[in-house]
Amino acid sequence: MAEDTSLLKYLSLNQITTEQWNLKEAAIGCAQAEVPWISIWRHKLEVFGIAESKRIIKDTGLEVSSLCRGGMFPAATEEQRRKNLDDNKRAVEEAAELGTDVLVLVCGPAPDRNIDLSRQWVGEGIEQLVPFAESYGVKLGIEPLHPMYAADRSVIVTLGQANKIAEEYSPEQVGVVVDVFHVWWDPELYKQIARAKERILGFHVSDWNVPITDTFKARRMMGDGVIEIRRIRKAVEEAGYHGPIEVEIMNQDLWDMPGEHVLKLMKDSFVKHV
Amino acid sequence: MAEDTSLLKYLSLNQITTEQWNLKEAAIGCAQAEVPWISIWRHKLEVFGIAESKRIIKDTGLEVSSLCRGGMFPAATEEQRRKNLDDNKRAVEEAAELGTDVLVLVCGPAPDRNIDLSRQWVGEGIEQLVPFAESYGVKLGIEPLHPMYAADRSVIVTLGQANKIAEEYSPEQVGVVVDVFHVWWDPELYKQIARAKERILGFHVSDWNVPITDTFKARRMMGDGVIEIRRIRKAVEEAGYHGPIEVEIMNQDLWDMPGEHVLKLMKDSFVKHV
Repeated sequence: MAEDTSLLKYLSLNQITTEQWNLKEAAIGCAQAEVPWISIWRHKLEVFGIAESKRIIKDTGLEVSSLCRGGMFPAATEEQRRKNLDDNKRAVEEAAELGTDVLVLVCGPAPDRNIDLSRQWVGEGIEQLVPFAESYGVKLGIEPLHPMYAADRSVIVTLGQANKIAEEYSPEQVGVVVDVFHVWWDPELYKQIARAKERILGFHVSDWNVPITDTFKARRMMGDGVIEIRRIRKAVEEAGYHGPIEVEIMNQDLWDMPGEHVLKLMKDSFVKHV
Repeated sequence: MAEDTSLLKYLSLNQITTEQWNLKEAAIGCAQAEVPWISIWRHKLEVFGIAESKRIIKDTGLEVSSLCRGGMFPAATEEQRRKNLDDNKRAVEEAAELGTDVLVLVCGPAPDRNIDLSRQWVGEGIEQLVPFAESYGVKLGIEPLHPMYAADRSVIVTLGQANKIAEEYSPEQVGVVVDVFHVWWDPELYKQIARAKERILGFHVSDWNVPITDTFKARRMMGDGVIEIRRIRKAVEEAGYHGPIEVEIMNQDLWDMPGEHVLKLMKDSFVKHV
């Protein structure tokens, strides 16, 4: 495919792609590789704490595309659901502190076999979180996950579901996050991207290749799989999204490399395939 | 859950569940365990040939719920697509010879990144196969596969897609096959089951549990996972289906057991959870 270097200004390292790096290493790595954006995972904030993490990011001149993640609303007991909501509020505070207005929601699985009830709990959780998030200027980005994760990570598995929930709120409150790995198979994909117009809060890229031997660490570098990434990117742009594009790849081979090497592969793959 | 032994008259061993058995062993095993139906996989016909296989099944008094499988329509070249169609015609002949009127279709993946084109080829393949199948009294059962298999086995991944294709034909020509493992996650599941009214040609059960380490051999015995199997079974019945219920489980642990043991587990699990 033709290279598209004009897109590099949107390139964001989703921090899980370099799980081997702590936040400081990742921030310095991005600055040296001229990657302008970074997406922070919450477990990565624990090493330096939020204030120091914020300072590190500021010093390197990076912008934060999103905080990953809130969500995980369903739970078997009301007490646990309340605790989950409290944790989401902390995530909102952290997002605001880090200077991003997007909290990505991975909505959570069903604690038992009742998937409908869990979907209801997701709706209730978001409803309860919205006023708090709004008061911090943070938008909630519902990320539908691949149906492969319905049992352990998210009962929200299509962009259609995410759109339906988001539409109950203003675009300043709730939107959707489009991750090509999660949605590429969907026969309604382009219709639902168009429907999400002005509500897309993030765009994530990676690739899908078989065999899948570990569902969590199944992703590949862009171009190493079957996803029509550029076509989806253009659809997302047509739907009004012109923000950072996160490269989010859980992959053991990448985690076993020096982070600098991962970033080089990432940039090459990004200009060729996104 | 309450046991439902009245359902045992519908129990069908999908032959892949006892991959360790050849067709004769499976037929005798079913007869001894009082399993009244069997679903045949085509690679299992090779050992004894079609005529002898037919005789074995007849001798044991089993009924054949379906032949697995036709499909795999997409291919990069027109020549290969024609070959695939020819192979589907042989599958139709085999289904008729074995005395079942249902050929299950696993529609096939995209040979390159163009998923829309592959979906078009699936539609064309079915269109070309229908008159031939009809002349043999064989119905085509489109089985949507879990989106996890979109890259390697089927670009038809939702019951909605399968219904849409099936509705272009009469219910005597084309219908759908509902496999709980493939469809349980779908937010449109019950709507699409209702839409398939009088067009459901098969119902397959197994269960989903995490972790998934091998996508092909990911299934579990009913009750060992998160799927609301009984709820789905009742919905399928409400949509007019009262035929055989196939237990189709690719699972290495089951394949490593004596087949008799698998059938005992299968019957116990079936009356408790289906």
